[in-house]
Amino acid sequence: MSNTNLKLNEINELATKILLKYGCDNENASAVANVIEAAEAAGCHSHGLMRLPGYVATLKSGKVNGKARPTIENLAPAVVKVNGHNGFAPYALQQGRSHLIAAANKCGIAVMSLVGIHHFAALWTEVEPIANAGLVGFACTSYKPAVIPAGGTKALYGTNPIAFGWPRKDNPPMVFDQASSVMARGEVMLAAREGHTLPDGVGVDINGTPSNDPNEVLKGALLAFGGHKGSSIAMMVELLAGGLIGESFSFEAAVRDNADGGPPQGGELMIAIDPSLLGDADNWSDHSEKLFHKIKEQKDARLPSDRRHKNRIESNRSGVMVADILLDKISTL
Amino acid sequence: MSNTNLKLNEINELATKILLKYGCDNENASAVANVIEAAEAAGCHSHGLMRLPGYVATLKSGKVNGKARPTIENLAPAVVKVNGHNGFAPYALQQGRSHLIAAANKCGIAVMSLVGIHHFAALWTEVEPIANAGLVGFACTSYKPAVIPAGGTKALYGTNPIAFGWPRKDNPPMVFDQASSVMARGEVMLAAREGHTLPDGVGVDINGTPSNDPNEVLKGALLAFGGHKGSSIAMMVELLAGGLIGESFSFEAAVRDNADGGPPQGGELMIAIDPSLLGDADNWSDHSEKLFHKIKEQKDARLPSDRRHKNRIESNRSGVMVADILLDKISTL
Repeated sequence: MSNTNLKLNEINELATKILLKYGCDNENASAVANVIEAAEAAGCHSHGLMRLPGYVATLKSGKVNGKARPTIENLAPAVVKVNGHNGFAPYALQQGRSHLIAAANKCGIAVMSLVGIHHFAALWTEVEPIANAGLVGFACTSYKPAVIPAGGTKALYGTNPIAFGWPRKDNPPMVFDQASSVMARGEVMLAAREGHTLPDGVGVDINGTPSNDPNEVLKGALLAFGGHKGSSIAMMVELLAGGLIGESFSFEAAVRDNADGGPPQGGELMIAIDPSLLGDADNWSDHSEKLFHKIKEQKDARLPSDRRHKNRIESNRSGVMVADILLDKISTL
Repeated sequence: MSNTNLKLNEINELATKILLKYGCDNENASAVANVIEAAEAAGCHSHGLMRLPGYVATLKSGKVNGKARPTIENLAPAVVKVNGHNGFAPYALQQGRSHLIAAANKCGIAVMSLVGIHHFAALWTEVEPIANAGLVGFACTSYKPAVIPAGGTKALYGTNPIAFGWPRKDNPPMVFDQASSVMARGEVMLAAREGHTLPDGVGVDINGTPSNDPNEVLKGALLAFGGHKGSSIAMMVELLAGGLIGESFSFEAAVRDNADGGPPQGGELMIAIDPSLLGDADNWSDHSEKLFHKIKEQKDARLPSDRRHKNRIESNRSGVMVADILLDKISTL
């Protein structure tokens, strides 16, 4: 498969240009292009330019308002509510972030609910700025049914990722971001696009039969990681990013969605905690480095975000290889 | 194996009597006995009377102060800090709970850090009262190294359970409580006591070799559920219940511990969220029942706490069968 090397600013400009062409205003185009660039820079190609056709599809179908202006309310001292008014998630997140951080700095912990958004990005790009502000961050979001509840036969939960970020003084934050499925839907899509088969135990076809064909699994369903434990986490995400904040569960989002290939309307929950207010203000950071050291001194163990940070340094220097088949697809937009 | 039927109040009285004998005051003995009774009632025998010899060992060795008086501070509007002053966790949790609930009712979300406690119970018994107060609850705690970090070879993380509770109007709360290991250490202890072998993929012996012998695995280490994803959750628990709040990581707790067979000193983190302040006060509960309905209509899927609630009804009616080998052991105390 042939690839083309693109600099990060070229990726950002390409995404921005196309989003503007299909009706985004500058603020929304820029917010979405930034998360696409961040994903490509970190080597998370499944959330990079590969998502651009999906973003465009939702603008073309009119499902998403590319000029949406998020509104922000404080529902309680530690509760920030952001209504995306049917826009893409990145701009709503960007606008709400400072309010969440301010509430956490004041109360010690705060929660941000996001409703009326269309989420199509990687969660770590959203938790990282919280950690860069010195706060511990957590985020979760649902999607459309893709994962079978433990003991069941049909997709009910979204892939429902959770992300957790931890600020570090002399290093980029430690951030993990993991789907509640054994494999992220984005990775299955990537396997389908590149013609790879899937390992055993990742998913089932539309009849509930185990399959290694990513195309069949995309029509069927994924399995939760770790059996009933991952399934419980997927359920928790439905409740936090849906039931708790008055947004859709994945199965409701799917019913309402127009199936244009882009993200449905849904919700997201973020929590931020200020470690300076939890009782060990002077020592929590140095102390926690001891844990990271203990992890890294073991054979092949590493911190979840180490690869992303390494990729980012390399991408800043040398750009990113993008598949020509994807660039061809984008050029038709 | 022979068993004896005990009524729940008999279990409570037996535990109370022994805890008082070994130096607990009434408040601490009662708080611990209540969580032992709750575990037996719910069919979670691994956290019931089976733990009594361990509680006693810590009192005999002088590691735990059975007369500890927890102190409570508000570090910020939404932060409650409880210092257990080297007592058992149940009394500290009981004393802090109303402060956590009050802070969540006021701020929308609140966090309680518990330090200087010795935790030897099931987390669901702690999250359930939060849910019974109408709040969404989350709790996590670390222990002593038992779980290998993904890619590593040696136990570093505790079994590090997380629990999540969701209040329901016409039903007992939905609560799940799951160790970050494939199998809880309590279950492995139970298998060792009852002479069962373990399934594949649960743990390794002291040399890092996979083993099905619970006694070997208790000396060796457990694997995290779902590979690197469960490992990341175990790490998150270390950070939340240790680094964030100024308490020990599992590996530090083990170094300080006197290995008397009971729980080391450690920390715990609880979060409570008031759903009436998250933007969908009138509908969140009914709405969320639709998700539970969708889960339960699938073949063998069930809500995580259904079995506990069912066991509890049965135990209230008919008491609990307790292994005579355990009662013999307790009678020597």
